[in-house]
Amino acid sequence: MADSSFPVSDLTRLRRRHERGRFDKATVYDILDSAMLAHIAYVVDGQPFCTPTGFWREGDCLYWHGSSASRMIRKQSAGLPVCVTVTHLDALVLARSGFHHSVNYRSVMAFGTARMVTDASEKLRLMDAFVDRLYPGRSRDIRPPTEQEAKATGFVMMPIDEASGKIRSTHVADDEDDYTLPVWAARIPVRQTLGEPEPCPRMVAGSAMPDDLAIFQGGRALDETLLEAYHTTYPA
Amino acid sequence: MADSSFPVSDLTRLRRRHERGRFDKATVYDILDSAMLAHIAYVVDGQPFCTPTGFWREGDCLYWHGSSASRMIRKQSAGLPVCVTVTHLDALVLARSGFHHSVNYRSVMAFGTARMVTDASEKLRLMDAFVDRLYPGRSRDIRPPTEQEAKATGFVMMPIDEASGKIRSTHVADDEDDYTLPVWAARIPVRQTLGEPEPCPRMVAGSAMPDDLAIFQGGRALDETLLEAYHTTYPA
Repeated sequence: MADSSFPVSDLTRLRRRHERGRFDKATVYDILDSAMLAHIAYVVDGQPFCTPTGFWREGDCLYWHGSSASRMIRKQSAGLPVCVTVTHLDALVLARSGFHHSVNYRSVMAFGTARMVTDASEKLRLMDAFVDRLYPGRSRDIRPPTEQEAKATGFVMMPIDEASGKIRSTHVADDEDDYTLPVWAARIPVRQTLGEPEPCPRMVAGSAMPDDLAIFQGGRALDETLLEAYHTTYPA
Repeated sequence: MADSSFPVSDLTRLRRRHERGRFDKATVYDILDSAMLAHIAYVVDGQPFCTPTGFWREGDCLYWHGSSASRMIRKQSAGLPVCVTVTHLDALVLARSGFHHSVNYRSVMAFGTARMVTDASEKLRLMDAFVDRLYPGRSRDIRPPTEQEAKATGFVMMPIDEASGKIRSTHVADDEDDYTLPVWAARIPVRQTLGEPEPCPRMVAGSAMPDDLAIFQGGRALDETLLEAYHTTYPA
């Protein structure tokens, strides 16, 4: 990568809690590549919308999709400024004062101008890429996308102009005077994990889980699994 | 409640997947009250921002907070249109075609005009309310907020003008012709759970977890725990 960090700008400068800021691409991209969903903010006639959606990254560009009919995609076809935010919740932090209650988290805000992908063959490529980003090798195993499906699917791309990460990963942090109070204070970890796969009831007998998907085993952390899947499909 | 459903409007009407829409307050509020974090979209000089933050509900109003110095709060003091979105990820859905890959989720988009809370005593009340919404009874046990902390904390309130929920909770749903393909297809549940509490290393000896917080036991689902906590502090 030519630049290994994002510039700190008026959009991404942290107004407070500077120690939580992360601008190096390695950290920002790990937070993005560990996530299934992003929340995408965009503006239509002055009204903000915040839409949760699946997304993924190729290089310095984010992609997401939805039906060509959805409001978000139609409005973004002209090229709209958007903010794509990804958040992982890692712990609840119960302090000795309300003021110092907190959560541990890893988040990224990425800014750029989103545009529709219109090229038909690029859309077919992206349909496979999205599946493979999540589930390595899966586009080989499933029924290929049809032209009609590609038409019905709107893909949006957003080159990342600016991005910043934010991480809180410490323990309870109270005012010095408060540590003597007889108050129970703790960090409670939060994990997002996979359960045991529930096979489709109509599956053809003998259709086994492919070896490529063995990483999706019950009990594993979703973020670690998605990051491993990402690096399998997009090696460094 | 006078009205048990939100009206369907241009903001909240689903353009597609109408069967996923939920407009009754009971469903919309359960989705909100089960969540720790919301993503809040707002606009500053045409630029959208999407900020993850802790929040909670009182009646038909949402509240959230942050340092008075944060960009979001400063800009919202004038009363800004915002969109507050909450999303729970419940499962990954691996179908026999890329087109029908999906996720199970519960989400809410709530729209309204956000305003700063300026009354000093109301701010002190909200500091306790936020802690108690998450951790029933905790404001009794901890060091009370100071006037200086209340000054440094900006609270934003947003009466909910409109809101809509969206839920996908079904299994793999493929094109009829594709069910005969010898492809492994499955739903993989995703759960966000609490780990065992990690006591603050500087805790005064003998400070035990209060009975009120026993619901935060390791292994429990975060959404169920937060909903139970909510109803303890805000009985129906």
